[in-house]
Amino acid sequence: MTCDFLALAQPGVQKLSPYVPGKPVEELAREFGLRPDDIVKLASNENPLGPSPMAIAAIQAVLPDMTRYPDGNGFALKQALSQRLGVTPTMITLGNGSNDILELITRAFVGPQHEVVFSEHAFAVYPIVTQAVGAQAVVVPATNWGHDLDAMAAAITAKTRLVFVANPNNPTGTWIEKGELERFLARVPEQVIVVLDEAYTEYVETTDVPNGLDYLKQYPNLLVSRTFSKAYGLAALRVGYGICQPAIADAMNRVRQPFNVNSLAQAAALATLEDDAYLAESRRINREGMAQLEAGFTALKLQWIPSRGNFIAVDLGREAAPVFQELLRQGVIVRPVANYGMPDHLRVSIGLPAENQRFLDVLKQVLLNG
Amino acid sequence: MTCDFLALAQPGVQKLSPYVPGKPVEELAREFGLRPDDIVKLASNENPLGPSPMAIAAIQAVLPDMTRYPDGNGFALKQALSQRLGVTPTMITLGNGSNDILELITRAFVGPQHEVVFSEHAFAVYPIVTQAVGAQAVVVPATNWGHDLDAMAAAITAKTRLVFVANPNNPTGTWIEKGELERFLARVPEQVIVVLDEAYTEYVETTDVPNGLDYLKQYPNLLVSRTFSKAYGLAALRVGYGICQPAIADAMNRVRQPFNVNSLAQAAALATLEDDAYLAESRRINREGMAQLEAGFTALKLQWIPSRGNFIAVDLGREAAPVFQELLRQGVIVRPVANYGMPDHLRVSIGLPAENQRFLDVLKQVLLNG
Repeated sequence: MTCDFLALAQPGVQKLSPYVPGKPVEELAREFGLRPDDIVKLASNENPLGPSPMAIAAIQAVLPDMTRYPDGNGFALKQALSQRLGVTPTMITLGNGSNDILELITRAFVGPQHEVVFSEHAFAVYPIVTQAVGAQAVVVPATNWGHDLDAMAAAITAKTRLVFVANPNNPTGTWIEKGELERFLARVPEQVIVVLDEAYTEYVETTDVPNGLDYLKQYPNLLVSRTFSKAYGLAALRVGYGICQPAIADAMNRVRQPFNVNSLAQAAALATLEDDAYLAESRRINREGMAQLEAGFTALKLQWIPSRGNFIAVDLGREAAPVFQELLRQGVIVRPVANYGMPDHLRVSIGLPAENQRFLDVLKQVLLNG
Repeated sequence: MTCDFLALAQPGVQKLSPYVPGKPVEELAREFGLRPDDIVKLASNENPLGPSPMAIAAIQAVLPDMTRYPDGNGFALKQALSQRLGVTPTMITLGNGSNDILELITRAFVGPQHEVVFSEHAFAVYPIVTQAVGAQAVVVPATNWGHDLDAMAAAITAKTRLVFVANPNNPTGTWIEKGELERFLARVPEQVIVVLDEAYTEYVETTDVPNGLDYLKQYPNLLVSRTFSKAYGLAALRVGYGICQPAIADAMNRVRQPFNVNSLAQAAALATLEDDAYLAESRRINREGMAQLEAGFTALKLQWIPSRGNFIAVDLGREAAPVFQELLRQGVIVRPVANYGMPDHLRVSIGLPAENQRFLDVLKQVLLNG
């Protein structure tokens, strides 16, 4: 008779369901006996352009030093971000992906006695990090698939320590306009930290979506979270960062693992940050691919949620799970979002033109046969 | 008047002092106006051999896929470890360095109501992860710089949830023999998890140090922690792993970030694991370098603590801090260990022969002048 170890785990951990990532290409190939080259993956909002050549060169240059520990303070990358973003290095916290930033802020400030407010259909990591520390999640119903910031402000109580706001939001692609965000920030009490998750902000090309950095001076309780995994094309390497007042950054750094961002990741992020042509090309591919998918959905008489990200949630008008499975069998990986309360939608990342077309062709065939 | 954010942080976090890493070469070069090539770093127990050529090749091969998220389940690396170690993949948890493993086990199982037992002069991450969850550290006095396992077993109370045991221990290099470990494991109640930190185990070439894996079947409360940062030469990449019963691994995986180990790190670890010649050469360099330093200390009439790691703690017979500072000025970085309760010692990592000699020469000169 052995011990029931799960019963010994922290109460929040016992009830925790881990994050379900998009299926890796290799895994699908193994499961369905497919050739990896025949598989199209539009499931994880990855940059279809491939990495910046400057990132590859930067990594090559540091490979001989792989036996050395990373610079735990991320000196060079913080300097570069500091100059580019117009903030001091002490306002920057580096993360092993922005997932790490979301976790660090939660672990530093939230305990079992607290509430954390976020929106229905918002990023799955918010409930996970909340549950991991045993806090109470307060999920505010969405309006038109997007954040209802007035309702979120109204949901703040004396127990609230953190609010997660995603702009644009994943998996819906919805966004918050400037006036809405300003009204919201003005209503949040200063002892409640607002995490403004801008993982997709580099894809925004319109002027109606605010830049969170503009509000850091006025709102010391604001943390803006960003990533190199999306428009900067470095998902494999895990680099994200948070920008906030040094007092909040100090608390996050206390729980940060000393070498959370590895050396190759720091080098690649630094190089990609300087590659303006790469970012411009990533945006162009995204803009054109979004138009291609929207046109394809129109032709298939499908509705979708307008998106400012590098992905789009399409409404199949029926349960999406069987369609997802059939797409898998045909070698096309997209993302089911039933776990986001969206059982009829699939989230599709914007790919290269041929990838988008392959998805649309297979989807058309599956819907006709289904 | 702004909010005192640190006062809002979790109680454990408010009292937390982050880990102090070895000074990076670039940082010393900036501070003292030295040329990086003139600096010898023997401060972080890094492998002086440089990385395995197989690791470099493996990374080169995956660079084009850097836009893709890592395999969050680490399929290939777990398979390889599973075969090599004779455990099932479900017993393996991958970490962003073994630091991540130490943190995951603590966050999954330990709360503010618990006690965590470890030894005086043991690895600095144990008190940090304990403090981060607000638990009570119980520090058991060392004997001859090493763990007093009988006293550690006696220190276990009804509140104890975790015990950290390092074998060999950093920064002392001391080790626990087979009979001692067996007696200890037999005394620990099953609901108390024993973390056996074997970060340096690949450097052990004698038969008197037990292999923790041999005790997993008999003791379901045992977690063995290992790393690719030391003998495998991949400190830059952050790969560690824990081996334990699936029930404990399940709880750790719930708090593990979904993409904690990046793709390049997984590829390099997998390649290095197969490079037996690299491991053999790493050991040879370590063995010979250890003898070189011991001979040098004898010539300088200095005492040291016998070590089974890739480092050695030398007793200067006087306060080590000024010597450390003078070594820095001369371009030699070693590690002061006053924060480990060892103000008269310096911890020196085993380097290449010329690096060891440079350190010994500069040390001799500093001691003569001091």
